[in-house]
Amino acid sequence: MAVGVSLLGCTGSIGRSALAVLDRHRDEFRIVALTSNRNGERLLELAHRYSPALAVLADDTVDTGAGIVPTSVTLRAGRAALLDAAVHPDADIVINAVVGAAGLEATLATLRAGKRLALANKESLVAGGPLVLDALRQGRGRLVPIDSEHSAILQCLEGEQREGVRRIILTASGGPFREASMDTIAAATPAQALRHPTWDMGAKITVDSASLVNKALEVIETRFLFGLPYDAIETVVHPQSIIHSMVEFVDGSIVAQMGFPTMELPILYALSWPDRLPDSGCRPFDPVAAGSLTFEPVDHARFPAFRLGIDAGRTGGTAPAVFNAANEVAVAGFLGGRLPFSGLAAVIEAALTAHDAVPVDSLETILEADRQARELAAQAVREYGC
Amino acid sequence: MAVGVSLLGCTGSIGRSALAVLDRHRDEFRIVALTSNRNGERLLELAHRYSPALAVLADDTVDTGAGIVPTSVTLRAGRAALLDAAVHPDADIVINAVVGAAGLEATLATLRAGKRLALANKESLVAGGPLVLDALRQGRGRLVPIDSEHSAILQCLEGEQREGVRRIILTASGGPFREASMDTIAAATPAQALRHPTWDMGAKITVDSASLVNKALEVIETRFLFGLPYDAIETVVHPQSIIHSMVEFVDGSIVAQMGFPTMELPILYALSWPDRLPDSGCRPFDPVAAGSLTFEPVDHARFPAFRLGIDAGRTGGTAPAVFNAANEVAVAGFLGGRLPFSGLAAVIEAALTAHDAVPVDSLETILEADRQARELAAQAVREYGC
Repeated sequence: MAVGVSLLGCTGSIGRSALAVLDRHRDEFRIVALTSNRNGERLLELAHRYSPALAVLADDTVDTGAGIVPTSVTLRAGRAALLDAAVHPDADIVINAVVGAAGLEATLATLRAGKRLALANKESLVAGGPLVLDALRQGRGRLVPIDSEHSAILQCLEGEQREGVRRIILTASGGPFREASMDTIAAATPAQALRHPTWDMGAKITVDSASLVNKALEVIETRFLFGLPYDAIETVVHPQSIIHSMVEFVDGSIVAQMGFPTMELPILYALSWPDRLPDSGCRPFDPVAAGSLTFEPVDHARFPAFRLGIDAGRTGGTAPAVFNAANEVAVAGFLGGRLPFSGLAAVIEAALTAHDAVPVDSLETILEADRQARELAAQAVREYGC
Repeated sequence: MAVGVSLLGCTGSIGRSALAVLDRHRDEFRIVALTSNRNGERLLELAHRYSPALAVLADDTVDTGAGIVPTSVTLRAGRAALLDAAVHPDADIVINAVVGAAGLEATLATLRAGKRLALANKESLVAGGPLVLDALRQGRGRLVPIDSEHSAILQCLEGEQREGVRRIILTASGGPFREASMDTIAAATPAQALRHPTWDMGAKITVDSASLVNKALEVIETRFLFGLPYDAIETVVHPQSIIHSMVEFVDGSIVAQMGFPTMELPILYALSWPDRLPDSGCRPFDPVAAGSLTFEPVDHARFPAFRLGIDAGRTGGTAPAVFNAANEVAVAGFLGGRLPFSGLAAVIEAALTAHDAVPVDSLETILEADRQARELAAQAVREYGC
């Protein structure tokens, strides 16, 4: 009997990769629910192709278009429908590739329902880490990351005792501005920021890679996923994106996971973990073709937003949610031409400085911090804007 | 209660590293037996320092010297005494760092006694692979490799299903002649061959690294240790010796073990496996300090002995024993100035061509093949000699 999969966020970058993986494993998995935020046309197309029991357009202000819905598919819209997809009775695994804060609610629902959550939504752990861990304990489900770095760490830790871990070394590509001067970075255009050297991803995350905000978010996720203190999580720039992360054990040994960059492998691993499924969809690794693998320290002077994120993580409570929300507003400002690249860190810092972090005790606390951060950030965008 | 360790070959390169590791872990391990082949003076010194129950000089034609033996230590000499050290009742773990064919007998004895064997003696698996696996099954002991490559593979496989493995990629430093022309290699002196770029090891193994014979021996060991066919074992030259080997899984993922070159980590891992013991004796890994990691294909034209070894492995039976014995004779000829470096492969090939491989059904079969190979090789050394 094939494993039931609910795919939240099927029309984004991760969603597309997930469908490619699921297409190659039709005997092992069947899609029981598909959701998209606003892309009704594509959702209908996928509903025809995969015949999920449930298809959801999460944003109910959007029209699903004039397409015909297959009779076997229930088409619904809105937040409650998204949450139903997150706990669908036929779903054994829920892939959460929702973008933004809406993903957190779905994460909590899936974990409380005791399902396996394959998590690509960064906001879940960054903004709601403590709540997510509570939901995991409560539902006794499983949480498996979909992200090349965290998937690498999970693979390196397989079969190892957690007390045997000394340090996690996250790798960062360094983004398009790795070699750029401070002045060049300050004046960078969206087009320049979107030219990622090794990964083909959505616009928001590509800008986050350029500012290293994405890496700070991943450090915070690492903290919650693997339970290590921030002092035991390091980041090193590795421009080739071949080594996806490393774990150092107490005896000094380093285990690393590597391969040519592709999101399909972390997705497949999240579905098959702790086993592995044969798959020839990824380009086989060839160390000779990989070329030189190099490493550089993170340059905090040129990428100040990285440390802001780590510091927010160390502060804890609502601070990471504020870091994340302020960054979202800042990135929108940058992509909209209203904020220079150098303004990203300034906006984030302004929001973090003005916010008094409180413990994360409920979803409401997070949403309130998120709302406040967006207001503070919007104000800062006007202040530091072009 | 500390784990009892018998250290066979305590005065060689691996033996010294093992003592350094054991010195740092006196609470966990106690030395119950020490053996040396011919270094009586050093053996007595170590007997005083560690007070093993048994101290053995394996070569009984050598005098132990005039030293005073501690009263708590039984000093013995000869092959039977070596085998007693290999099955010492107080030894939970036996480290076999014996050099040469004598190591095979000790390996078989230890495994038949159901102990954990931490194996550094290459001849055991290369010459006696099928017998060693039989002894392992029979005694239900454990076999853990001491070698940076095989230790790396073992670490990468931890927690994984064997059917999930697609390929093992052994790394090779390439040795001192990695960039040398065919003519330069042909005319290489022992001093040049002994100048290993990344590893500080004994003379024989350093020459074997220069000819890539060592890597062929490791491929054969990999075959027996991890049960993969030769087609699934690849070798890639990695001059920096930072990545100690990699495993590719069926989903296309690569897991690698890495670190600055040191034999102490594989030794400690063999003692602690599948757990890890905290240790700060190894230089902590720093990817930035490691510099560029590069990979090259093996050049079979310049290193013909490598393929001879793989082919001997594929032939099976006594062929790997002949490969190994002929190489030993050839290396002795080279180090003694009686054979040019280019003669190594020629001598090995001559012995392999003249030998009809038979299945390995007993120690006697191996010893007879070994004897025959040495004769054939000695003759070939005279033929191809300087």
